[in-house]
Amino acid sequence: MTQSKAKQHKHSATAEMCPHYEAAMELLGRRWTGLVLTSLMGEPTRFSKISSVVDGISDRMVSQRLVELEEIGLVERKVDAAQRPVLVEYTATKMARELSPVFDALQNWAEKWMPARADS
Amino acid sequence: MTQSKAKQHKHSATAEMCPHYEAAMELLGRRWTGLVLTSLMGEPTRFSKISSVVDGISDRMVSQRLVELEEIGLVERKVDAAQRPVLVEYTATKMARELSPVFDALQNWAEKWMPARADS
Repeated sequence: MTQSKAKQHKHSATAEMCPHYEAAMELLGRRWTGLVLTSLMGEPTRFSKISSVVDGISDRMVSQRLVELEEIGLVERKVDAAQRPVLVEYTATKMARELSPVFDALQNWAEKWMPARADS
Repeated sequence: MTQSKAKQHKHSATAEMCPHYEAAMELLGRRWTGLVLTSLMGEPTRFSKISSVVDGISDRMVSQRLVELEEIGLVERKVDAAQRPVLVEYTATKMARELSPVFDALQNWAEKWMPARADS
């Protein structure tokens, strides 16, 4: 078999995989993580809104993912204590907003190749 | 609170999420799926090679993901029965190869923002 380096994708199995890429893909490979992040790319968003926009997610999973994403630095939790009741909103950090090119590329791919989810 | 449509990401929580996008993100949100696909973006690849390139994956998971991805149309299984032993290789289909812009964007993001996985 002849090898043609020019034809190979840079992530192909002929090389070790980049550990940073592996870590990023592992992050997005946690169920709901990508969709929760996507739902936060606009203005600050309440818990109940995330829960309603991400189809099929449970409140428990929204909660768990938000805690994880806050720890990683992808989500910021903002509390406005002056309001009654206290207003809690979540927003994507700069780190998360820079995932936009990834999400946009996936949107383009999905429109061409992906049927909608069977359960929606 | 004033709404500024121009500043909102198209996937933001102010709108219903695109069902095609949801389906695509759900697909990549299955553990190992993105890394298995990435490992197949080059030339046809043997099972053992996928298993060794994707750090930490079990043979059982490689097998399960390959079956799923073949069913979805993302992976093609090629059997060369003329060889002894029979040569079985896996390759990304056109549908999968068109995920390259997604993977490339994630690579760029990962290099800037993502530490390597703790277990690697």
